[in-house]
Amino acid sequence: MQEKARASAVVFRPHVKTHKTIEGARLQHGGNFGPITVSTLAEAEFFAGGGFRDITYAVPIAPEKLDRAAALASRIDRLNLLIDSEMALRAMEQRGYPFEVFLKIDCGYHRAGVSPDSPDSLALARAMMRSPTIRFHGILTHAGHSYHARNTDDVRRIAAEEAGCLTRFRALDEELGFLVRSAGSTPTASVVERFTEVDEVRPGNYIFYDAFQTAIGSCRAEDVAVSVLATVIGSYPERRCAIIDAGALALSKDLGPDHIDPDVSFGIVCDLDLEPLPVRLTSLSQEHGKLEGIAHLPVGTKVRIIPNHSCLTAAMFDRYHVIENNECVAEWKPTRGW
Amino acid sequence: MQEKARASAVVFRPHVKTHKTIEGARLQHGGNFGPITVSTLAEAEFFAGGGFRDITYAVPIAPEKLDRAAALASRIDRLNLLIDSEMALRAMEQRGYPFEVFLKIDCGYHRAGVSPDSPDSLALARAMMRSPTIRFHGILTHAGHSYHARNTDDVRRIAAEEAGCLTRFRALDEELGFLVRSAGSTPTASVVERFTEVDEVRPGNYIFYDAFQTAIGSCRAEDVAVSVLATVIGSYPERRCAIIDAGALALSKDLGPDHIDPDVSFGIVCDLDLEPLPVRLTSLSQEHGKLEGIAHLPVGTKVRIIPNHSCLTAAMFDRYHVIENNECVAEWKPTRGW
Repeated sequence: MQEKARASAVVFRPHVKTHKTIEGARLQHGGNFGPITVSTLAEAEFFAGGGFRDITYAVPIAPEKLDRAAALASRIDRLNLLIDSEMALRAMEQRGYPFEVFLKIDCGYHRAGVSPDSPDSLALARAMMRSPTIRFHGILTHAGHSYHARNTDDVRRIAAEEAGCLTRFRALDEELGFLVRSAGSTPTASVVERFTEVDEVRPGNYIFYDAFQTAIGSCRAEDVAVSVLATVIGSYPERRCAIIDAGALALSKDLGPDHIDPDVSFGIVCDLDLEPLPVRLTSLSQEHGKLEGIAHLPVGTKVRIIPNHSCLTAAMFDRYHVIENNECVAEWKPTRGW
Repeated sequence: MQEKARASAVVFRPHVKTHKTIEGARLQHGGNFGPITVSTLAEAEFFAGGGFRDITYAVPIAPEKLDRAAALASRIDRLNLLIDSEMALRAMEQRGYPFEVFLKIDCGYHRAGVSPDSPDSLALARAMMRSPTIRFHGILTHAGHSYHARNTDDVRRIAAEEAGCLTRFRALDEELGFLVRSAGSTPTASVVERFTEVDEVRPGNYIFYDAFQTAIGSCRAEDVAVSVLATVIGSYPERRCAIIDAGALALSKDLGPDHIDPDVSFGIVCDLDLEPLPVRLTSLSQEHGKLEGIAHLPVGTKVRIIPNHSCLTAAMFDRYHVIENNECVAEWKPTRGW
């Protein structure tokens, strides 16, 4: 992904919320402390403490967190914040700190962001340009709706919209021409050959991928780099089921790509070599996972679960065991919380 | 719940996995260090360190954890473990420690446990009685299927099955007559007037309750004791929606009682006085929650979310703010992990 960004001459600012580790973020930058994207202020503080000096907090900031953000911004090179309303702009101006700010644009996901086609959005952008306090750095979007895609053709179409909406917005007023265009989701960043119509990309999940990304075509099954080791603690061949010691608190209850397979289960159950087993992880309670299928798995059997959504699953653990050639070569400690 | 157990002359052994705090467990025992139930060995160690000396680890134990369990058992009064297979019994005998053991019986949930009606189950119980190594302490069941109930009549029927199956099993052989009968889920423990046909009860969720328990009739809405404070960080009245800074990592993605309401959302959105607001929490991504509905909630508005499943939601946080008369009077720190 780093190589694709370099070849496309765009800034590479991976989202580190998927792994939340210093080691992972450095790996994404070939060992260096490059620009990163985070999802909480606690992450921003953790990565700043670990040596990262150019950070985008890519969730609209709650007004009460502006003091904390200002304190952090003053001790690194750049903390980019996100807004999508006049009210948030006013809160920042009232705080008085010269924050670097992105305007969030909604390219079709309809979560956060202003419409790229609304006169109100242009008015907000102009107010940001004229602001005596903040520095209007760029426009940013995230094609989260690429997760609703059914195949790579869908994702390619969404990738074009994602990039195009920023260029279109910037063209509304020639004074907006200086703004950085920042885009990126793992599905869209994975399927394009090169990045066009953007100045910066922010994929995150690609560091691990997962069962969901495999299902929509972002990666091959063998590209998934994270799994949860679990032990069979109950075996009931007469009911064709077994219980593992990984439940909702180990795996998260993310339903996975149920828009593609309504019968999708809570992760892909594999043997230790990551070969899928003929069982389905049909339900999760707090500390139990229920396997159903024809494999006979006696008590004590080890299995590896490829998670539906690696970001949510990884966040459940206080460490990663980094495996190379079947040896644990390192432990990585993630941050958590807000 | 403690009072109901006392009036029924049964041992009260609340499940502390819901809150995972020393303070909560002491509150459940009126300030004392009574018997408790835990869901992980890490919890058992945490509560033992906090002064609890009679602990049931109510998940079938993975064979590789027997050394850790023996180390813990040797430093408290009683660590009860759970098995439901010959293989687990053999692993314990091989370990050689005189573990206190419960046989898990399946009263209809079909997760873990042996069938109360199978000759194999009786053979396993007899093998446990004859074991030269372990101490066969009791039989234990959990009516997890009470969560599939639609109303209190359903729950009452399941409560009768839960208690009855233990008595029935014990009657299969007069030598089993000494075994403790341990049962309990929050729905079944909440709806019965008194506990019958059991010697010990283990409800857990009742300390907080949640939106799910309210929906199936375990409690009233005003009984729910835990909520997540969140801030509106994006407001889009033209789309009738808003974004809060509590997503899947704050609330968990538990779907809630979708067997009662297929349109159930990810929690009940309330104002600061816990009055429900006319909005639904329709989707969660990692750090965003999306509200849809008619309430206009400007950026900065505080809301409180009553979780679908308080056990999973509470586990996402590193502390509780204990509120009394609108004042934070204490912070409780839970344990986590395995």
